[in-house]
Amino acid sequence: MDSLTALQKFREYFEKYVPLTDEEWQALSRYLTVDALKKKRFYVEAGKVCDHIGLVVKGSVRYYHIKDGEEITGYFSFEDEMLSSYKSFLTRTPAANYIQALEDSVIVNLSHKNLKEACMNELLGFKMERFGRLTAEHYLICYEERITSFITQSPEERYADLLQTGGEALYRIPQHYIANYLGITPVSLSRIRRRIMKISA
Amino acid sequence: MDSLTALQKFREYFEKYVPLTDEEWQALSRYLTVDALKKKRFYVEAGKVCDHIGLVVKGSVRYYHIKDGEEITGYFSFEDEMLSSYKSFLTRTPAANYIQALEDSVIVNLSHKNLKEACMNELLGFKMERFGRLTAEHYLICYEERITSFITQSPEERYADLLQTGGEALYRIPQHYIANYLGITPVSLSRIRRRIMKISA
Repeated sequence: MDSLTALQKFREYFEKYVPLTDEEWQALSRYLTVDALKKKRFYVEAGKVCDHIGLVVKGSVRYYHIKDGEEITGYFSFEDEMLSSYKSFLTRTPAANYIQALEDSVIVNLSHKNLKEACMNELLGFKMERFGRLTAEHYLICYEERITSFITQSPEERYADLLQTGGEALYRIPQHYIANYLGITPVSLSRIRRRIMKISA
Repeated sequence: MDSLTALQKFREYFEKYVPLTDEEWQALSRYLTVDALKKKRFYVEAGKVCDHIGLVVKGSVRYYHIKDGEEITGYFSFEDEMLSSYKSFLTRTPAANYIQALEDSVIVNLSHKNLKEACMNELLGFKMERFGRLTAEHYLICYEERITSFITQSPEERYADLLQTGGEALYRIPQHYIANYLGITPVSLSRIRRRIMKISA
């Protein structure tokens, strides 16, 4: 994907929240970088400060923690989703998790320094503030849903939800990562899949 | 607690994020209400739309879900913490959880309608936007920490964290609610407490 197309996708994402004039977009785009993230490469690693917030415009990533030497998958992000280790990014402290590309990906990035400058920019300040509020609210809602799901759902229910919300993108995730995300073995996941297919057949 | 003191506490909370002139505060305070919430009464109930976002200025509340007839405690909030069923409040959809007063409490509330009007107010618009962004980011960080804790910590580790962050307020929560929050029986919690006391003795 060429840089112009990638930037255009960022503009479309931004304008779902806050419309921009061409002049404002010109100003904003100067703060952005378009970066390739090859499969298996890290967007952030535990113990390091996450210096970017980005938009996935192509590909996908997996969020995971390491506990007692084992990977524990927390989440996946696909095209048109923001990504960052938010706490690390916002507080400038080391991240607790890894974010790794599942596929060859393209990310439109805003560094911490550039975000700060864009917020101070007279032309952009108010719109950046509003975009910041609306996206923070959006992810607050996502996180609330994930906490509710942790508290109230069985792995089978969480898988059924994932099928409903993930759509086709789900087929791009290796099954063992999905099992890991649900906190079950790949064998248990196969069993759940067979049960669900029987019900919907 | 009288209303003036309650409002003053809200101002102090707001100004930790965004300073206000006296004139701006006069304008903002007109959108606020001071409400008593008696012990055991509900701030929000599952199935109903949460119409307020508030600040606890006295007392405490417990967040919980009901799953198969059983209460599952998700969180507690004390003085100087915001409360809302955020997804319900922001999207105007029925809440998934209950928020119930643990003690006789006082809440400074901003209704959905008043928040919208305050954001449109010429004098306040930009500051409300910034306050909104900063508090949404603050709770995004809190939620990220809770998800990390769900994924990576044992009940014992979560209890140790709770002791560290909760401070004295923790002694105001009945033990069976703390056990319920940790997903263990009250007997297991007693065992963990004895173990921790031995280590720190």
